[in-house]
Amino acid sequence: MSKILKNHAAIVGVGHTDYSMNSGCSTLTLAVQACGAAMQDAGLGVGNVDGVVTFNTSDSVSAEAVATALALENVNYSCEWYAGGTSPGALVELAELLVNAGKCKSVLVFRSMNGRSGYRLGGSGWDNAATGMWQYRMPYGYMTFAQTMAMWCRRHMVTYGTTSEQLGSIAIDQRVKALHNNRAMKRQQLTMDEYISSRMICDPLRLFDICLETDGACALLVTAGDRASDCKQPPVYIKASAWVGSKEVGSDWADFFLRGDMTENFTAKLGKELYRQSGLAPKDIDVAEIYDCFTHTVLLGLEGLGFCKKGEGGPFAASGAIGMKGEIPTNTGGGMLSEGYIHGMNVIAEAVSQLRRECGPMQVPDAENAIVTSGAWTEGSGLILSNQKGK
Amino acid sequence: MSKILKNHAAIVGVGHTDYSMNSGCSTLTLAVQACGAAMQDAGLGVGNVDGVVTFNTSDSVSAEAVATALALENVNYSCEWYAGGTSPGALVELAELLVNAGKCKSVLVFRSMNGRSGYRLGGSGWDNAATGMWQYRMPYGYMTFAQTMAMWCRRHMVTYGTTSEQLGSIAIDQRVKALHNNRAMKRQQLTMDEYISSRMICDPLRLFDICLETDGACALLVTAGDRASDCKQPPVYIKASAWVGSKEVGSDWADFFLRGDMTENFTAKLGKELYRQSGLAPKDIDVAEIYDCFTHTVLLGLEGLGFCKKGEGGPFAASGAIGMKGEIPTNTGGGMLSEGYIHGMNVIAEAVSQLRRECGPMQVPDAENAIVTSGAWTEGSGLILSNQKGK
Repeated sequence: MSKILKNHAAIVGVGHTDYSMNSGCSTLTLAVQACGAAMQDAGLGVGNVDGVVTFNTSDSVSAEAVATALALENVNYSCEWYAGGTSPGALVELAELLVNAGKCKSVLVFRSMNGRSGYRLGGSGWDNAATGMWQYRMPYGYMTFAQTMAMWCRRHMVTYGTTSEQLGSIAIDQRVKALHNNRAMKRQQLTMDEYISSRMICDPLRLFDICLETDGACALLVTAGDRASDCKQPPVYIKASAWVGSKEVGSDWADFFLRGDMTENFTAKLGKELYRQSGLAPKDIDVAEIYDCFTHTVLLGLEGLGFCKKGEGGPFAASGAIGMKGEIPTNTGGGMLSEGYIHGMNVIAEAVSQLRRECGPMQVPDAENAIVTSGAWTEGSGLILSNQKGK
Repeated sequence: MSKILKNHAAIVGVGHTDYSMNSGCSTLTLAVQACGAAMQDAGLGVGNVDGVVTFNTSDSVSAEAVATALALENVNYSCEWYAGGTSPGALVELAELLVNAGKCKSVLVFRSMNGRSGYRLGGSGWDNAATGMWQYRMPYGYMTFAQTMAMWCRRHMVTYGTTSEQLGSIAIDQRVKALHNNRAMKRQQLTMDEYISSRMICDPLRLFDICLETDGACALLVTAGDRASDCKQPPVYIKASAWVGSKEVGSDWADFFLRGDMTENFTAKLGKELYRQSGLAPKDIDVAEIYDCFTHTVLLGLEGLGFCKKGEGGPFAASGAIGMKGEIPTNTGGGMLSEGYIHGMNVIAEAVSQLRRECGPMQVPDAENAIVTSGAWTEGSGLILSNQKGK
C-alpha cells in the first residue's frame, strides 16, 4: 500500500454545463459554470477552494482567469497543461498529490471547450503543422486523429479478426445507455443496420465509431480525505492514480508507427499500475469508464485493463459483457460517443456518479469500485475510484 | 514540519547548453543536450529517469519528444505546461511531489527555447491577441511585458522614491558577477553612465533593466532523498516549495491594474509560505536567486522575501547588500540580465551551483540555504534549497 492511499483524497464535487453543438458563450463562461456547479455540489465555498488546474490545446481559457472569475479568495496552485485526452486522470492525480501534501485544501480540475462551434479537434487544422511528426505526415494528407486510430484499428482486425460489427456493438451499447442520460447529446436508438450503413470516415472507422464534437465544460473538485466526509455528497475516494507512457521507449507521436505492437495501447501498462497501487484486480471492479474517442479505444481498454484477453475485445464487447447486465458495465452514461466529448473529463464524472449511485436505470447495483482511463494511444492516465474508504 | 520535508527530495543533476543569440539548432536538440547533461551530471541513466516535465508558450518542444529522443526506458510521468516564468519552481515542486509519492524515480525539469533567433517573448506578437485581457489592452498598443513592468516600477518610484540609479545598481552588480561566469552572454563591465545613457525601452525601464533574449536550454534532475546520496554530485535538498497566487482575489492578468497595491508582487506571499514550510527565516538564507526578467523584479523580491522592508528595496540594493560581500548575495551568476534568459530555469540552476560550492570567485562562502523565485507579478513559485539534509 503506498502512502498515497492512506490519505484517501476524494472527489467531492462534479459540475457539468449543458453539452451542445453551439454553446453561444465563451469557454470562460462554460468553465465558470461547471466549476461553480462542482463547488455547489460539494458544498465548498471560495474560502475552501485554492487550486485550479486544467488542460487544453490552446482552445480554452486559463486556470487563472477561472480562479479570478470565481473570486477564489486565495490561490495556492494553478496550472494549465498543453495536452489532450491523456490528461484528466493525471490532473486528478496532481490534485490528489497537492491535497495530500498539504499544498492545497481543494483543487478544481476542469476542461472547457467549444469543440463544435469553436476549435474542432477532429480536423486537420493543426497549429503545430510544420513541426515534429507533422512534417512527415502532412505531405501525405495524414493528419487527423481518426486517420491515426484507423491504422491501429486495422492492425487489430488483421491480427485478431476483429470485425466492424463488433466495433458497432460498442457504439450501439453506449447509445442504449445514453437514452437514460439527460446530459447526452444523442438520445436516439442506433441499430446495427444504421451503424454499418453510416458514412465511412476513415476506413475502417465509420461515423458512429467516432466521438461527438461538443461545446461544454466539466469540472471535478478534489479534496483531502479528512475534509471529504464533511462535504454534501458521499466522497468518492481515489484508490489509485497513474500516468504512464507506453512500455516501449519514449512516447512521442513520431514513433506511433515504429512500434512493434499496435494492437495494445497504454492501458496495458496503466492497468498493472492501478491494480498494484490499489491491491484490487479486474474482478473487483464494478464499472469501467474507458476513454472513448473511438469505439476501438474502448476495445483496447477492455483488453489492457484485463477484462478480457488480448485480442478478444471484439467478441467480448459483442457478447454483451459491457452492457448493464454484463460482466463489466462500461461507459454507463453513453460515453463520449453518445453523451458528449469533454475530452475525457466527463468520463471521470460518470464514474463518480456511479459510485454515488445516482444513475437511475443505468446504475450498476451496489457499485463500489470504478476504473477510469484517459487517453487513446501510447500514453495516458487513469484512476481507480471507490466509495469505500478501505484500509 | 510537513510530511514533504521529511522525504528530502533533492536536485541531483543540472545541465546547460551554451547560451547564445542564435543556437543554430532546434529546441528539441537544445532540450536533449541540457537533459542529457543533467543526467550525466547526476550519474543517472535512462533506467533511472522516468519523468519529464516542462513549460513553454507554444515555442518549444514536448516533454514526450524529449523522452523519446533520450531513449528513456520507461516513462511514468510527463507534462507540458502552457505557462511562463511562474513555472520553474512549481515544476520542481511537482517533481518533488512525484518522487515523494513514489510515482517516479527521478524527474527531468527543463526549459528549452530559441528566445532570440526563434520566438521572441519580449515582443507584442501574441498568439492569443484577441482574448482575455488583450482585447482591452491591444487597442492602446499596450502589449509587452516591459510595458507592464514599467507601470509597476513607476508606482514603486512614486510611492517610495525609488530611483533609476537604484535600479541601475542591480544591473551593474549582476554584471560584475557575470564577469566570472563562463556561461554568461554578457561579460563586459557596465558603468552607471552607460546604464543611465542606455536606450529607454519603456519609461522608466532602460535597455539594461531588461533581461537578455536567449537561445538555450537548462535542465534539472530531481530524485527522491534515498537515491540522492548515491548520485555523483552532492544533493541539493528541497526544503520548501510553493506556488502562490497574489494575496488578492484571483490571479488573472486581466486584473493587473485593478489591484489596490502594485508595489508588491507574489513574493510577499511566497516568502511567508517557504519560511513556514522550512522553519527558516530570511537571516538563515545565504544566497538569493530572484527571477530577474527586469531589475525591478529583483527589487520586489528583496522586499517580498523579507531581506529589507517594503519600499526600501532601492536603497538596499544600491547599498551593496546584494553584492558578494553584502547581506544577501543575489543572482550570483549574473542572472537573466547578464547570463541569459532561460525563463527562470537557470535561476534555480545557479542556486544549485552555489549550494554545491562550485562558483569559484562568485561562491558565497559556506552557503547552506538558498531561496529562489519564479515569476514577476501576481503569481509565481519558489523554493528553499539546502545542502544540509536537516531533521
